[in-house]
Amino acid sequence: MKKNFKNSKGQKLLKVAKKIIPGGNQLLSKRSEIFLPDLWPSYYTKAKGCELWDLEKNRFYDFAGMGVTTCILGYADKDVNNAVTKAVQNSTMTTLNTYEEVELAEKLIDLHKWAEQVRFARTGGEACSIAIRLARAATGKDKILFCGYHGWHDWYLSANIKQKNLDDQLLPGLESKGVPSNLKDSVYPFSVNDYQSFENALKKFDNKIGAVIMEPVRSAKTDLNFLRKVRKKTKQIGAVFIFDEITSGFRETIGGYHLKYKINPDVAILSKAMSNGYPSSAIIGVKSVMDQAQDTFVSSCMWTERIGFAAALATINKIEKKGIIKNLISSGKKIKNGWVKAAKDAKLNVSTAGIHPIPELKFNYANYNEISTYFIQEMLFRGFLANTRLGTTFAYTDKIINLYLENVNEVFKSIEKYLSKGSNLPLKGPVRHTTFKRLI
Amino acid sequence: MKKNFKNSKGQKLLKVAKKIIPGGNQLLSKRSEIFLPDLWPSYYTKAKGCELWDLEKNRFYDFAGMGVTTCILGYADKDVNNAVTKAVQNSTMTTLNTYEEVELAEKLIDLHKWAEQVRFARTGGEACSIAIRLARAATGKDKILFCGYHGWHDWYLSANIKQKNLDDQLLPGLESKGVPSNLKDSVYPFSVNDYQSFENALKKFDNKIGAVIMEPVRSAKTDLNFLRKVRKKTKQIGAVFIFDEITSGFRETIGGYHLKYKINPDVAILSKAMSNGYPSSAIIGVKSVMDQAQDTFVSSCMWTERIGFAAALATINKIEKKGIIKNLISSGKKIKNGWVKAAKDAKLNVSTAGIHPIPELKFNYANYNEISTYFIQEMLFRGFLANTRLGTTFAYTDKIINLYLENVNEVFKSIEKYLSKGSNLPLKGPVRHTTFKRLI
Repeated sequence: MKKNFKNSKGQKLLKVAKKIIPGGNQLLSKRSEIFLPDLWPSYYTKAKGCELWDLEKNRFYDFAGMGVTTCILGYADKDVNNAVTKAVQNSTMTTLNTYEEVELAEKLIDLHKWAEQVRFARTGGEACSIAIRLARAATGKDKILFCGYHGWHDWYLSANIKQKNLDDQLLPGLESKGVPSNLKDSVYPFSVNDYQSFENALKKFDNKIGAVIMEPVRSAKTDLNFLRKVRKKTKQIGAVFIFDEITSGFRETIGGYHLKYKINPDVAILSKAMSNGYPSSAIIGVKSVMDQAQDTFVSSCMWTERIGFAAALATINKIEKKGIIKNLISSGKKIKNGWVKAAKDAKLNVSTAGIHPIPELKFNYANYNEISTYFIQEMLFRGFLANTRLGTTFAYTDKIINLYLENVNEVFKSIEKYLSKGSNLPLKGPVRHTTFKRLI
Repeated sequence: MKKNFKNSKGQKLLKVAKKIIPGGNQLLSKRSEIFLPDLWPSYYTKAKGCELWDLEKNRFYDFAGMGVTTCILGYADKDVNNAVTKAVQNSTMTTLNTYEEVELAEKLIDLHKWAEQVRFARTGGEACSIAIRLARAATGKDKILFCGYHGWHDWYLSANIKQKNLDDQLLPGLESKGVPSNLKDSVYPFSVNDYQSFENALKKFDNKIGAVIMEPVRSAKTDLNFLRKVRKKTKQIGAVFIFDEITSGFRETIGGYHLKYKINPDVAILSKAMSNGYPSSAIIGVKSVMDQAQDTFVSSCMWTERIGFAAALATINKIEKKGIIKNLISSGKKIKNGWVKAAKDAKLNVSTAGIHPIPELKFNYANYNEISTYFIQEMLFRGFLANTRLGTTFAYTDKIINLYLENVNEVFKSIEKYLSKGSNLPLKGPVRHTTFKRLI
């Protein structure tokens, strides 16, 4: 171990944090235990491009998601930060509204020709809740079918009341504690690319469905025929069809991933990459659904703040002008190919998944979790934040990707050395968490 | 009319906005129709101190709330903006967490000695939802009693399912459309300073209450005896007692208003003034409730972003060092006294309400709404954004307050002139909205 990661300032601060912040932070996917328990740097002081400095000023290249896949332009992107700084100087909150919210609404409608109206929020979970509210209002039907992960709100977690409906959708072991029990049987899951499971879910509620919500793509390649059939069926039964594009948006298209498939939902939700990591989310949709916002009540002070709009406009502008999308795809391909090549060289059995801008690495072994922990540990010691899923960024140069892959190559060989000997991988801390575990 | 407010760029942009954003914006309290239909400047370009410039670069002094009472230090405050700009330069979102969230948690616990743990969100509505979730999880009881306004989420709006329980609490006419009907009878209101109404609400649910949520103070002076009895009763029946301090926090105390009363809740919610208008909210509470966040699921990517924490730390630091609280109270007193004196001079019948830092003006006439519309209109023409409720700010100097009050004086005299003649007030546009009206 080059540095004392175990007793780092970051690990010490994390111990303080866990005493006063339940779980230690605000997002499961940013918990140190998800990456590398006891060793993860945990906190940063500054970041620029794809580089990041921890509390001890150790520098790392970020190949661990670039801020939960938000920062597609890179950390502290010059152009986005210029727009944000200008907004900050001119005040980001006043008694009046900010014209940038109208500009952003116009831009999103321009990018998604099928969409007629827009509302904004700050977080992805809020935006999903708003979409569900509007869908229920538009149809007068409360029941929801979903596939995948859509946040922490009651409507969604109610799937797990006295059931385990989220185990195949999200992290196993998730509890619905604190969600009103009256919401039991108000939502039901189906499986991606499995139309029969969708039909079964429909039957559960006698086709009386207010909304169907899903991501257009996640780890698995989307079966377009499946997606078309779901779209067709939702029209037939008068259910609002919602694409959750919080993660998939602005990756392979300038806007929602569905633009690539030419399958239009009634509502789509955008966030994350849309504003390069500044808090912002958008609900776009057809007027008949969106306009329900006028008959129900959806209103929040902080949604009016300027930075989210200014950052999103600057991000989308740069995506359009600088060929960002092509770059994100190309970098993802290089990384996937690099993993495969390195594995072949090391005689390791790995496979890849995910869309190119969000590449995923799978170690095809029974002890894959131990292996990935060792992978993250060794990459950390070599100056890389690593993970088995990442988000590409415009800040990756060929040189940096090659440097990363050279190190991957060596770590893969090290893994194989231990595996072929049948010996344990020399972990300096516990195996990383993959489930929702109680963290004290 | 000095300027052409009716065909201003702001009014034109608002027409565009209303076509593509249901309601025209993201917050009811920032809708132009709430202030001055057809004439309100609607959008700003920049703001500094307590001054604000519209799309045509007309300058106004803001006596209309300073950003829905968020900007207690003033618009674009130098010290808060320095902290925010530094955060922006060093990246506000990365794969790692930001140490400022731990510092802010420590600070809030230090300010509220009864609180043991903290979670953060971005908006007030989210924070209320989290508090309710944690309370339900901690008690295993779903039923909630509330008093006042606590956001747009399902748990709260469910009060109006096939009932009008919110009419006395919020804006009359609010619909619960899109809220699952199964949530009917899960929450119930009581009236502030009316212990009998609280007892009646308890009976409604046979004392089986998960949480009681209320603001420690709003327009009316709080009856401390009432508050103490509610606090005592919640302990007896094992309900979590929540203070919603989104509006009341950081006004007369450095932290929640309850610090002044020495009545501790189990959970308190802070936002708005805490970060001088940057999106941020905090849920602070006793460990037995807060720690439920580990057994349920409350997680969001955008809650981890740096600006909210950095802005709150800088705001609280300045509040502590610059005697802000004393100033906010003193300015509020001056404004209230000025209103009363101006009314006396003009022989108008007005009264005041609200805590000093959030003074409220009431025209004691049947056509008060028409009068307040005329008041806002005339003040606008004189270069002031005005309202009948405002939030004081450290940016108000005596000179500016006096200038405002001189103009109030003249407008009050003008009002009296029309009233005493029995003639209509010469409004240039419609009377302002006070209810949740559908805006096309």
